Amino acid sequence: MKFNFIDGGICAAQGFRASGTYCGIKKPAVENPNIKHKNDICLYVSDVVCNAAAVYTQNKVKGAPIIVTKANLDKSGNKAKAVIANSKNANTCNADGEEKANRMCELVANELNIPKEQVIVASTGVIGQVLPIEPIEKAVPILVNELDYNKNLEAATAIMTTDTVKKEYAVEFLIGGKICKIGGMAKGSGMIHPNMATTLNFITTDCAIGSYLLQKALSEIVKVTYNCLSIDGDTSTNDMVCLMANGLALNEEITAEGEDFDIFKAALYEVMANLTRMLAKDGEGATKLLECTVSGAENKDTAITVAKSVVCSSLFKAAMFGEDANWGRVLCAIGYADAEFDINKVDVDLKSENGVVAVCRNGSGIDFSEEKASEVLSSDEIQILIELHEGSEKATAWGCDLTYDYVKINGDYRT
Amino acid sequence: MKFNFIDGGICAAQGFRASGTYCGIKKPAVENPNIKHKNDICLYVSDVVCNAAAVYTQNKVKGAPIIVTKANLDKSGNKAKAVIANSKNANTCNADGEEKANRMCELVANELNIPKEQVIVASTGVIGQVLPIEPIEKAVPILVNELDYNKNLEAATAIMTTDTVKKEYAVEFLIGGKICKIGGMAKGSGMIHPNMATTLNFITTDCAIGSYLLQKALSEIVKVTYNCLSIDGDTSTNDMVCLMANGLALNEEITAEGEDFDIFKAALYEVMANLTRMLAKDGEGATKLLECTVSGAENKDTAITVAKSVVCSSLFKAAMFGEDANWGRVLCAIGYADAEFDINKVDVDLKSENGVVAVCRNGSGIDFSEEKASEVLSSDEIQILIELHEGSEKATAWGCDLTYDYVKINGDYRT
Repeated sequence: MKFNFIDGGICAAQGFRASGTYCGIKKPAVENPNIKHKNDICLYVSDVVCNAAAVYTQNKVKGAPIIVTKANLDKSGNKAKAVIANSKNANTCNADGEEKANRMCELVANELNIPKEQVIVASTGVIGQVLPIEPIEKAVPILVNELDYNKNLEAATAIMTTDTVKKEYAVEFLIGGKICKIGGMAKGSGMIHPNMATTLNFITTDCAIGSYLLQKALSEIVKVTYNCLSIDGDTSTNDMVCLMANGLALNEEITAEGEDFDIFKAALYEVMANLTRMLAKDGEGATKLLECTVSGAENKDTAITVAKSVVCSSLFKAAMFGEDANWGRVLCAIGYADAEFDINKVDVDLKSENGVVAVCRNGSGIDFSEEKASEVLSSDEIQILIELHEGSEKATAWGCDLTYDYVKINGDYRT
Repeated sequence: MKFNFIDGGICAAQGFRASGTYCGIKKPAVENPNIKHKNDICLYVSDVVCNAAAVYTQNKVKGAPIIVTKANLDKSGNKAKAVIANSKNANTCNADGEEKANRMCELVANELNIPKEQVIVASTGVIGQVLPIEPIEKAVPILVNELDYNKNLEAATAIMTTDTVKKEYAVEFLIGGKICKIGGMAKGSGMIHPNMATTLNFITTDCAIGSYLLQKALSEIVKVTYNCLSIDGDTSTNDMVCLMANGLALNEEITAEGEDFDIFKAALYEVMANLTRMLAKDGEGATKLLECTVSGAENKDTAITVAKSVVCSSLFKAAMFGEDANWGRVLCAIGYADAEFDINKVDVDLKSENGVVAVCRNGSGIDFSEEKASEVLSSDEIQILIELHEGSEKATAWGCDLTYDYVKINGDYRT
């Protein structure tokens, strides 16, 4: 299935208004020259109540917003109408974290005159610093006042931390003759190694779809998109993806698996895979996107495990930064992946817009032109193609190179 | 038990001669300015046949020397007399790898007039480049001719790759009134994340001890030393620890568990823990040793898992390079460790020769002096002390900071 990109991010789907502003949650002691965007808080609201689905970090340390959002959706029966999110402070590992996260939901609920449990809250930034609530109390009325159907960009920039570009993607598709749209925004640059969840990702749709299927689609697609992404192997405490469906496309509600559900999932994959790719490409300090596709696996999990092992290897990531065709490091990372397969059947190719070079056949090195390899690796998007020759399943994982700037950004992030 | 350091490395124990030389296995296209040592091949030999024990990498991709050594020890009934090792080429992922590794053993066996299966072979360096055998054929007679009881340093420098310092450690101890010695040498700087094995580590002893107990002691101590070490999360294809005991101390052979075996294990721990510490401190590009000790765990495995998770975190490693007391990253890494415990009981202190600073109590941040924290973190050896308050087990893991130089060294290692 092919889908066309459309503008609008989280406001692409009908009936979603957004806003973003700067409230001054934290004035950094030293301005980070990598951060040029200014907004630090955003809100988005559906005109009607939505079915909502979410997945959360599996880190034992869970940010207070994660705990509060989960409790709200449990209470509301997975219904939601509004999302508030801030950057610069993760509101995690603070004694008063849940109290503050609940207060954020209350502020929004009071201003919009909706039940508190229909509000989703998310925070990202430094762990373990007390969240100042006063700037947020002042900001919420402003955010509500400024809500508009085209302010997706104000929101998308408000959730950025060390991100250097905003991440938005949206597509449209037909369900039963009705035009439906799915759009989303994401943030994340470091501390990215999602495990059954991910960094902050907000997705909206006007497609009518039941709660159960909405969650099923989200969980399935997260597994093959965000969970196949790693920037630095660190699973964050505040990861969350949330997907809200308001039904304003007026299609007949999808209530059973079948063709319509498959179209919905394919469209959701398109949005989430593109956001994942954007997250990888904007990894902290990254100069290159690494996209590893494993084919010929006996099962999907093996393909995922092997692909992730390669994009997680610090040594391989550093070699890609140096544009060095060190395929031995690819094979080493394949070898320590926790999956069963015959290493002596493995083939590896390196590919980019500049061509393709075969570097390994049957688990052993083969002669290749260093000149051609350098040309392939000079691109800023590198594909690593691995064939296991054991079956027909495939999967892709996304990552980025390891650079001086990653070290620089993380050597002094907190102050 | 306290042990005193003695000189001599692998030649500290009686009856072990060593030698090392430069044979020209590979002339790097571009000289790596980090590599100042010259030897690229070494040999060491016991005057009498030894009981031998070994552990190997768990990577599915196994270097040819690993396969050949394992086959030799199986054939000889775990008896060995000589070890040959080269650097600059890992002899891994080559179609003719095993043939070449066997040839290295044959060359040594012929020159020393011993059975080929009593020779252990190890290689370290670039993966997937054909090993030239001619330089080794020329080197072996020279190595045999130059064997001496005090040439441990010639051997210790021959196994270095991106290592900046040689690693040797030895101790002496009494068994039944007889003076016994254990000594060792190690190499390794990157691609270090041992899994049931480790980078190259060679240990010798003159203590008389049965084969079964020798292997048991080695496996037990590996688990709490080398397997608690991570430089970059990459498990090498050529990891190997081997331990040879020639019995020349003339103590009554240790053939059962008990006091003597416990003394032997404590001495072995002393040597291996110190070599592990040296490996961590000389991690590629490292400026700081990180030593994470987890106490109060319900069981040993939990303590090991949590300690390793912290020293493996790229974000925490980068923060330590920047001397930034970002304890939230410690807690984040504790949280994604694959073990069961209550995160809300966790305490964290940072410590060095400059003092100690408490940064977290009961899973939440506490106020601390940034000035004091900076002072603590300005040291080149940092301890991270974690208390779980759930039991009485403890474990230590070793690692290093993540620096610009790690990226530089690995961005262009192969050429």
